[in-house]
Parts: sequence; structure tokens; C-alpha cells
Amino acid sequence: MNEQQQGKGQGTRGGGKGDAFVTAITSQGEDYSRWYLDVVLRAELADYTPGLKGCMTIRPYGYAIWERIQQLLDARLKATGHVNAYFPLFIPESLLMKEAEHVEGFAPEVAWVTHGGKEKLEERLAIRPTSEVIIGTMYAKWLQSWRDLPILINQWANIVRWEKVTRPFLRTTEFLWQEGHTVHETEPEAEEETLKILGVYKEFVETELAMPVIEGRKSDAEKFAGAAKTYSIEALMGDGRALQAGTSHNLGQNFAKAFEIKFQGRDKVEQHAWTTSWGVSTRLIGGLIMVHGDDSGLVLPPNIAPYQVVIVPIPRGDWRETVLPHAQAIKEQLVAAGVRVMLDDRDAYTPGWKFAEWEMRGVPVRLEIGPKDIEKQQVVLARRDTREKQFVPMDGLSVYVQGWLTDIQATLLARATQVREERTHYTESYDEFKTLMAGARPGFVYAPWCDDADVEARVKTETQATIRNYPFVAPSAEGKTCFVTGRPATVMACFAKAY
Amino acid sequence: MNEQQQGKGQGTRGGGKGDAFVTAITSQGEDYSRWYLDVVLRAELADYTPGLKGCMTIRPYGYAIWERIQQLLDARLKATGHVNAYFPLFIPESLLMKEAEHVEGFAPEVAWVTHGGKEKLEERLAIRPTSEVIIGTMYAKWLQSWRDLPILINQWANIVRWEKVTRPFLRTTEFLWQEGHTVHETEPEAEEETLKILGVYKEFVETELAMPVIEGRKSDAEKFAGAAKTYSIEALMGDGRALQAGTSHNLGQNFAKAFEIKFQGRDKVEQHAWTTSWGVSTRLIGGLIMVHGDDSGLVLPPNIAPYQVVIVPIPRGDWRETVLPHAQAIKEQLVAAGVRVMLDDRDAYTPGWKFAEWEMRGVPVRLEIGPKDIEKQQVVLARRDTREKQFVPMDGLSVYVQGWLTDIQATLLARATQVREERTHYTESYDEFKTLMAGARPGFVYAPWCDDADVEARVKTETQATIRNYPFVAPSAEGKTCFVTGRPATVMACFAKAY
Repeated sequence: MNEQQQGKGQGTRGGGKGDAFVTAITSQGEDYSRWYLDVVLRAELADYTPGLKGCMTIRPYGYAIWERIQQLLDARLKATGHVNAYFPLFIPESLLMKEAEHVEGFAPEVAWVTHGGKEKLEERLAIRPTSEVIIGTMYAKWLQSWRDLPILINQWANIVRWEKVTRPFLRTTEFLWQEGHTVHETEPEAEEETLKILGVYKEFVETELAMPVIEGRKSDAEKFAGAAKTYSIEALMGDGRALQAGTSHNLGQNFAKAFEIKFQGRDKVEQHAWTTSWGVSTRLIGGLIMVHGDDSGLVLPPNIAPYQVVIVPIPRGDWRETVLPHAQAIKEQLVAAGVRVMLDDRDAYTPGWKFAEWEMRGVPVRLEIGPKDIEKQQVVLARRDTREKQFVPMDGLSVYVQGWLTDIQATLLARATQVREERTHYTESYDEFKTLMAGARPGFVYAPWCDDADVEARVKTETQATIRNYPFVAPSAEGKTCFVTGRPATVMACFAKAY
Repeated sequence: MNEQQQGKGQGTRGGGKGDAFVTAITSQGEDYSRWYLDVVLRAELADYTPGLKGCMTIRPYGYAIWERIQQLLDARLKATGHVNAYFPLFIPESLLMKEAEHVEGFAPEVAWVTHGGKEKLEERLAIRPTSEVIIGTMYAKWLQSWRDLPILINQWANIVRWEKVTRPFLRTTEFLWQEGHTVHETEPEAEEETLKILGVYKEFVETELAMPVIEGRKSDAEKFAGAAKTYSIEALMGDGRALQAGTSHNLGQNFAKAFEIKFQGRDKVEQHAWTTSWGVSTRLIGGLIMVHGDDSGLVLPPNIAPYQVVIVPIPRGDWRETVLPHAQAIKEQLVAAGVRVMLDDRDAYTPGWKFAEWEMRGVPVRLEIGPKDIEKQQVVLARRDTREKQFVPMDGLSVYVQGWLTDIQATLLARATQVREERTHYTESYDEFKTLMAGARPGFVYAPWCDDADVEARVKTETQATIRNYPFVAPSAEGKTCFVTGRPATVMACFAKAY
């Protein structure tokens, strides 16, 4: 029944009233940014909201992807000992002001509540731009002894940041995310947690979203406001720009000191705790679109696709009596095998229209069945990723389909990895760097680096490139000189133009 | 690993620092309202947030109950053809003003955002007190033809209402809920949907929360601001007061007209659609506490309990070598059978302390195991609801435990139903009505009613009782006279003092 809503009805035909047929979208080559928006709207992932600049509505098909992300990531977070909770949406202004760097980083983006009903509030309330402050306040209230540690809590929540330039999924005034907030007895334990979560993110994004990422540490200029160290995973989009796909912060004792998160240690001495925070957001859906999508629309990895297979019956003669029952039987067989299936039995559309529509929505496998197929006890399977088409006997169909789904998942990851490798460069020359960054699809550039924030700012001004992170896996910088200043390099940095 | 967080560590010992042992709570007889708050805090379901009056933090144990509610209800909503989506948190003031009754009902409770960063907004934004307005706006944008109907969308979201008097779970400034919003071609279809969902709510709440409810229609005075008809399910709490546990609204064409939710009909004529909305919230957790709880704390129905069984190993001698491995094996056996299990192997607490702690948290079954039990190949099982204690052979244990869980679920529903029956009265006399309502645990009072809003207001002023609903199942009012005015009765009303 679910499918009735995610693909059919619900005003599914186009972004605005009237365009009742599959309309072509802008090609990637013509205008990548326009292509992205076209896919978001035409595949009905999200829509603009009248009167609310920068706020998107996540439509059922887009939200079904988010539900898959939640389900698959939540299981991983619980398996590593984390539990969920829910903390208030509001942060009193005086609390927000307690951690100086944090305020400086977030205050410009905060939405402020000033009135409740007809009354003016005594103190303004910030809508959470992130929850370290309010969660830290509660942890200070709860934490007493080293025996209470570690505290490993996550929350799934909405977040508001007043952004000037917005783009659906990638940067919106309101977005959805999970934010983990943990408290530890010692610094090494906090660091271990920070890196453990980064590893969970990398494994999750690569396994389920088929999106290869580079793990590494952020430069000081790019780290989270208030963090001691920030780590990130960075993915490469189809246009050669990078997307920060997740971050994990070791907050040191900064927040513990600002919010008095203290405990009595094993030595009976009261001391400040060590905290971390980490998150991924609906931004991942933007990443999915740009890593795998093509000129026909979305291409979804089977693990994350709301529907893995769409069945399109071919309407010949009295097909509702002859073809449809077979299509339904196949659907039941696939569902029983654990496959997520959509049977598109709408009368109002032709098979060709449906093919284009479900390609736009990125369904990994299309299954066609008509009267002749039934005679021959076969169906037609078509892959969204390679466009391969094949006759397959009905006997043993679900095993065959599952094999395809596994192969599509692996193919998408391999393809995205190959594209990234092709667009990953190494240079020791700033001139070459500038040429690379001025290219059509610039990609990642690794370069030996002197770790100087002023020089970093200059590179950004001159080339729009930023340091994505200092990758864990990279050529050694030892003995090299910085590609900009010629000073001794201390680290290998990965640069890119970023979303 | 999950259990490490929901029961152990996390500053689990008491509401404030220092009270490191299980402390007694106020008894229900002494002060029911205080008892309720004691259970909320001591069972670590929720906590107050410093500086945020009326905002609660839902702690991991309370949130795990909400996750169970979400999971079990979401499956029912999907099985009846609904899908999830996510709409913006904000509603521009001009949009909110479009449906007159709705504004009048909600404007006094709205929190207003006036600033984004340092800039004053051109138009104030309401934080959603409910989402008819913003969702209706999107539906107007999407809906074109009768072929797009019905639209059956639900969202899980946070809601803000500026309440003057608050109480954790029952009435808080921010709360969590699901809100369904549907659009239909005809009035009968909208009415059918409204009643279908009411039925889903009743079945869900009775089956999973073991909370018997009365289905019925609200009086005009009590209906949702902007609705044509409101239906509710009403439960009776341990103190004889009623709790509205869920509502389902037939909105007629009120919102369709205010927000121009129109479509081209089968007759090619453009027409306004018929809409519904419906929701249940974290309030259900408050209901759970008050329907089943006792002077030892929470009593959770097994279907909704984060842990259905807590295993407490008895620490004799080198119990970590002798007893613990058996406890772990039993845990694994139960988990494999689909039981949610917590093994409390903490050293710092005695078995007696653990017994009291897990009683406070309402775990349905306690399993004790010590060296003598291992010799005899048995364990001790203790029920939270009846306090029955029994030796049970290890052989076939998980089948036995599952039998107990089924029985506890049924027993809790039966017990709550019996209590409700005992506290349900029928009267045709206003004097008797006043006496009943002045009693210690007043309960439900059915009475023949003239359906007059002015008289309804008078009854409320004089007795604090309100009409909970006009129950679907009730004695006929035909030929009766109204218990207040003596005028001919038109309907049988169910009155109660309510939360």
C-alpha cells in the first residue's frame, strides 16, 4: 500500500501544475547546478515552500531515503553502545554565550524566538544550530562519578541555521540530522570515540550509499567552533567538487569547562570530563544525487533505494486479467525474498512513460512483463546503472534479482571510486594547483603543506579551494616543501572546491 | 551494549547529585500528582531543563519507550497506505492567519521567531503548533487532478505550544508527535479516513499500551480549532481523571478553502478537496505511567517495554566466574527468542538495590540466578505486575518467559479495563453528578445530554468536568431528558475531569 503514496498519486506529475508528462531535465554538461535542482524536483525528493526562503519540504520519496539512512545508521550506533534521547529545541541566550568560540561560530546563523503567544520573553531563545550547549547543560546535571562514564547518547532532530545561500539538501535553513554527544573519563577515550564514529560513518556511507570517502583531520581554520580537533569524511561529487559528508569532533575539555561537566574521579578528585560530538545530516541525500546521478535523473544504490525493483506490466488486450495477476505474483515472490518492490499498475500512463519516470527516480532494477513473456515463462530485467537489459526465466527469479542488486551496489561504489581516482591529483607546484582548480571538474588535489592559516586563507581567495582534510592515508610530507610557501611541509593536505 | 546506556551509567542514580541509592517515592494515596513527577524523574524517563520552563529532556529510558511507540504505530500507518514526509518547522504569520478559527485557537500558544542572525525578519515566523497550514499550502501546490487523490501523508515531528502550566509528557512547551494529513475527493471518504485512523489508534493503544480507551466524537466546544468534526480516544488514569490519548479530525473543506486545496474532478470541474488530520504524542507515555504505575514506580506492558526481562545475578563467592557465564547464556537464549533483555552485572550495587531499581523502571519480568539455582538447573522469575515469584527450570525457559510476557500484557489490559468499569457511572441527576465529580477518583460519568455549549460551560465551571466525547458505544439517549436542563436529550455524553 505504501507504494500508492511514494510513486503514484500524491500529485506526482512534475513540479508544478500542468506538466503532466515526463519532462526532460537539464543535462549535467549544460548546467550541473540546474541539473541537480531538476533532479530534486522531478524525482520528487523535495520541494520549495512558498513564503519560506531556504526551507524545504522533504517529499515522501525523499523522506523514504532518509528513513533508510536512519534505520541503517541507527543500528550501527546502537551496536556500538549508543542510545537515543531527545533534548529541547531551544537554547536560552545566556547559555549559548558560555563557550566563546562556539558562540562566535554559530551566533550569526541563529534564529531567535522572542515572543511566546502575546508575551515578550524575558530572555531570547535560540533555536538549536547544534546541541552541545543544551546537552552539555543536562550532562552537567546528571554526571556525578567516573562510574557514570562513558555517556554515549545520540539524538535524531531538526536543526536551524540562518543561511544566506541555500540549496535543497546541501544547505537549508532547517535540516534533519543525528548528533551524538558523548562524555569520557580521559582524553584518549574521547579521541578513541571520535575516531570510532568517523570509522562508522565511513563504513556506513561506503557500504550503504556506495559513496567512497576520504577520512582525515580538519585544519584549524576548518574545524568545528569550540572543538579541539575535528575529523571529517569527504566525498567527491560528479562535478569535481567535494562534499563534507560527516564530521566527528573531539571537544577536549572546552565544553566541559564552559558547562561544568564534572565528575568525581577514581582518585576521589573532582575533575572536568572530556567530550565529543558528531553528526551526519540530510545533506547525505544531496551527496547521493551528485555521486551517482546522470542525465536521466537519480541513480540509487539498492541498499538505500525505497524501491529496489519496479514492475511495469505491459498492457496488451485485457492485461488486467491476463498480465496483472502474474505481475502481482512476482511482486509477492520478491517481497517474500526481502526485496522492496513497487508494482506500477496505473492505467493512465504508457509503459514508456513509466520507464522514464522510474529511471528519473533511480530505481535500480526495472522488471517488464507482457503476454509474450508469460507464454515463455520469462520477464525482462533492466538495470538503471548500466542500462543492461536481459530476458530472465521466472523460475529462480528472486535469486537472480538479488544477485543483480548485490552487483549494482558494488558496481556503483567501484564506479564512484574510479571517478574519484581519476580526479585525484598530486602536486608540489602552486601554478599547477591553480590550473587544476580552474579546470571543469577539479577534483581532489593532495599537496605537501606548511599548515599556516594565513596561507590557507590566501589559497582560498586565489583559487576558491579549501583544505578538505589531512587524509589518514596519503603520501608522506616528510622532506617535502610546502607547495605554496616553499617552507618545510608538516603534513599532506587534501584540497578541493567544496559545497 | 544498548543496555549499558539505558539502565547503567548515564548518571542513573537519582534525580540530583548525591542520592546514590534507591529513594522512596511519594505514594499515590498521599499525593498523586507528586507521585507522577517522582516516577518520571526517578525512573529516568524525563528531566527538567535548566532555564527552559516547560521544556523537558526525554532521557534514554523514556525515549526508548517512544521509539517502541513509533515503531509499532508507524507500521500500522504504513499498512493502511500512509507514507512519511517532512514539512518545515516554520509557518509565516500571514499563512497562519488564513483559517480564522484555527488562528483563534492557536495564536495564543505560538512561539514567534523574529530574528535570523542579526537581522530582523520582514515577517514573523510561527513555530508549528500543528501543521495543517504549512502542509495545506504544499498540498495546494501539488494537487491537480482527482487521480492524485487520496494523499495520505504522515510526519513525525516536534511541536511547540506556549503553555502556561506544564507537566512532563502531559503538557510541555515542546513535545514530539506524529501528525497525519490527508486529502480526499469526497466528504464520505474523508469521514471514512478520520474514523479508520481513530480505529487504528484504539487498536494500537489497547494492544500495545494495554490502555483501554473510549472512542467517540467531541462536542463542538471541545473540537479542534478549524475542524468540522473531531473524534477522540479517552483513557482513564489511576486517579480517576481522563486523558485524551489521540484525536482524529474531519476538517471538511475548511482548510481546503482557506489554502486553496483544489483539484479537477471526474466531471472536469475544479473543486475544493476534503481533508483530515490526526495525531498522537509523547503524552501517551504520561498515560502509560498513570494507567499502570503503582507505589513502587512504573509498570510497563511487555509490548512497549525497552527491556522485557532484567537478569540479576546473585553475587556469591567468585560469581563473575561461576554465575555470570550462566546469566549471559540465558540472556543470549532469550534474545535469540526475540525477548528484549537487560543483564545487570554491576558490581557496585546489591541484588536488593537492583530489584527496587528495576521495579521502579517497570521491567515486566525479573530473572534471578545464583549458585544454588545453577546446581538445581533453575532460575527465579518474578512478575512486576502481580509480584508473583516462581522457580522455573532452565530447560524450556524462553518459552516459559514468552508465556509470562503474553500473560502480563493481557493482565494489564484486563486490570485497567476493570478499574475503568468500576469507575464508570451513569446518571440522570445533576446532583448525583456533582457528588461523583467531587469524589476522590471521579472516573467517567455517562449522562443524557442536550448538546448545548452554554450549559456545557456551566457544568465545567461548577464541577470542573468536561465532555470527553459522545461515545460510539453507549446507552441510547432516546426518550431521556438532559441531566442538567431537563430538556429532551439528543445524545449520550461521557463526562470526566481531564488532564
